[in-house]
Amino acid sequence: MNIDNLLADRTRKMSVNTIREILKVVAQPGMVSLAGGIPAPESFPIDILQKLTQSVLEQYGPASLQYDPTEGFAPLRHALAKDLAARKGIQTAPEDIFIASGSQGVLDAAGKVFISKGDPVAVESPTYLGAIQAFDPYEPRYVTMTSDDQGLIPESLEKVLDKEPVKFIYLVPTFQNPTGRTIPLERRQCIADIIQARDVLLIEDDPYGDLRYAGQPIPPIKTLAPEHVIYVSTLSKVFAPGLRIGYYIAPQKVRDWLVIVKQGVDLHTSTFNQALAAEYIQGGHLEKHLPHIIRLYQPKKDAMLSALEAYLPEAFTWSKPEGGMFVWVEGPAGYDMQALYHRCIKQNVAFVPGQFFFTDPAAGTHTMRLNFTMADEATIDAAIKKLADVIKASSI
Amino acid sequence: MNIDNLLADRTRKMSVNTIREILKVVAQPGMVSLAGGIPAPESFPIDILQKLTQSVLEQYGPASLQYDPTEGFAPLRHALAKDLAARKGIQTAPEDIFIASGSQGVLDAAGKVFISKGDPVAVESPTYLGAIQAFDPYEPRYVTMTSDDQGLIPESLEKVLDKEPVKFIYLVPTFQNPTGRTIPLERRQCIADIIQARDVLLIEDDPYGDLRYAGQPIPPIKTLAPEHVIYVSTLSKVFAPGLRIGYYIAPQKVRDWLVIVKQGVDLHTSTFNQALAAEYIQGGHLEKHLPHIIRLYQPKKDAMLSALEAYLPEAFTWSKPEGGMFVWVEGPAGYDMQALYHRCIKQNVAFVPGQFFFTDPAAGTHTMRLNFTMADEATIDAAIKKLADVIKASSI
Repeated sequence: MNIDNLLADRTRKMSVNTIREILKVVAQPGMVSLAGGIPAPESFPIDILQKLTQSVLEQYGPASLQYDPTEGFAPLRHALAKDLAARKGIQTAPEDIFIASGSQGVLDAAGKVFISKGDPVAVESPTYLGAIQAFDPYEPRYVTMTSDDQGLIPESLEKVLDKEPVKFIYLVPTFQNPTGRTIPLERRQCIADIIQARDVLLIEDDPYGDLRYAGQPIPPIKTLAPEHVIYVSTLSKVFAPGLRIGYYIAPQKVRDWLVIVKQGVDLHTSTFNQALAAEYIQGGHLEKHLPHIIRLYQPKKDAMLSALEAYLPEAFTWSKPEGGMFVWVEGPAGYDMQALYHRCIKQNVAFVPGQFFFTDPAAGTHTMRLNFTMADEATIDAAIKKLADVIKASSI
Repeated sequence: MNIDNLLADRTRKMSVNTIREILKVVAQPGMVSLAGGIPAPESFPIDILQKLTQSVLEQYGPASLQYDPTEGFAPLRHALAKDLAARKGIQTAPEDIFIASGSQGVLDAAGKVFISKGDPVAVESPTYLGAIQAFDPYEPRYVTMTSDDQGLIPESLEKVLDKEPVKFIYLVPTFQNPTGRTIPLERRQCIADIIQARDVLLIEDDPYGDLRYAGQPIPPIKTLAPEHVIYVSTLSKVFAPGLRIGYYIAPQKVRDWLVIVKQGVDLHTSTFNQALAAEYIQGGHLEKHLPHIIRLYQPKKDAMLSALEAYLPEAFTWSKPEGGMFVWVEGPAGYDMQALYHRCIKQNVAFVPGQFFFTDPAAGTHTMRLNFTMADEATIDAAIKKLADVIKASSI
């Protein structure tokens, strides 16, 4: 049948996700992929899971398999409230925590609640691609803010707010995807002051905050401007992404809309998985397992930073994250990272050209994102060496 | 903070779901609820679940906890393809079956892909409320078709298509929610002919087809017009709703858009739950367990129909479904079912006033939806008797 005339206006503007296509190439056998953005399977608490399923079925019985309120499974909301207070300094009542189908679900809901066609939304440049994919169908106009090694520059936020009545600001302040950058406390305080003074809404996306391998934790902006921040996080990196459990804490007036919208999208997030997550946190397993994940990733991160130091030509610079999953590399101005990508995959090393993380299609052509969670240390070292060899071979 | 000026145009038009509010009242202790629409907890294969989780962890290991393609978990798509061919006569390749987070997820994705503001969408009158909730944020204009005891009247569909370039038609042809009505084969063939001749798209939502307690199965419209139907179903009624597993089979040109859109909403449906579902179907558990569910609901349905026959005044009529979860009752013209609802909850009997299932706010004020899956037979009998007593007391 003829479909073209049935598509919505928004759909006509959509295109196949290029990263998706890259990841298909990358899945080819023999490829060393620094392109992905997924946790190592060894990080999953698989030996605990059998116990968790048993305890869920015993403790909650059929209720763990039944329809459940859109807001979230009550025992998980209680477990998260305790955990957030203890580990992140976020003081919040269980009724103020809402569960979503991955943090992606919160981003989609926020897009639906706030964005009318053409509305300005402020994003970092580069920013998280999944957020762009969540917001795009609601047809916002992106306004970009400038970042440096310490993440978002507060003055840049102020300049944007001077000119644009943004619906919200979207930030990943800690170990950002794609750059690995973290906004220090001083800047967070500035940002909190600005959004409070101007009464604007910030979506603080914090999927990686728990994955800190060095340095001291920095409080979420949520703790500095509680009434102006939708704090979003996920259990994907500290439990298992395949369970699709995200959560958020939103200002009072926002949360009802997010719940109404979610109800139309998926009624609620899997009760069974929420019950597993509740048992995982409540039973102390998260606290016990997290150090294992950190011990797994820390040497991988170190291996990547050492290899970049050892092999990359001088004209290249990169971020030095204390956690998360990514390192951001910048070539000299004008460097064609897409061309390098094609040369590298012929050598069985893959990364993501950084330009895909910019809302401006002309930006970031000299950048790349590297992931260090999937390969082992020796493989990371060898892959970065090969990458450097390809760079050197083609630049002479 | 001030939120009102941040809301999208679509959000300003949303209102709190009245049924949600009704269901809260209904959850009060002592209430006999014929208002819900959820499976009986006794229908869940809870004793099988412990085995399934074990076999999933053994067989798929970390892959069952990892990110997975948006299209769906491959073993589940294979299991469904075999099952759909064997039990529903739908011949389809595993690659043509797509997994969603409940059938709600398919309805949301279809809304996003097809509906621009003001686009006409054809729905039954009354129709499934969850579909309206999924489509509403995309701001369609609903065009209603007329139904009788045998469901949608094909001539009414033709009349609508004469006048309106609908983006799609939405139907629940078997044991419809809220009416319990089923479209017979002859009419399905007419509908299939019409949509093929006019090259229009039908969303066939089939959550209840497996719950047949009498009579012979009727083939889905999908089998009669395969290229013009998005067939949507769910494991919520035959496995467990809390796992949020829906699926769909869409015409070639439609499916890529649905996948792209779902990626922005939740990346993918829970891998772990999809693996559980794969094992449930593959291991022959669905086939073995379904007769148990049917044996559980059949006497409940019979009890409700007998009680309606025994107690309800002559001026009332009702549907006589051979399956599903609902019976639809119509009072005499002008009867105020909302007023009856308020009198009934004082007597601790709850139902849903039918008007909420109509897109026209003035329609259906004399109708009600009754659910028979939650209460036991004696309770159903007593509740219908009480309902009839309230009707009789107030109509004299």
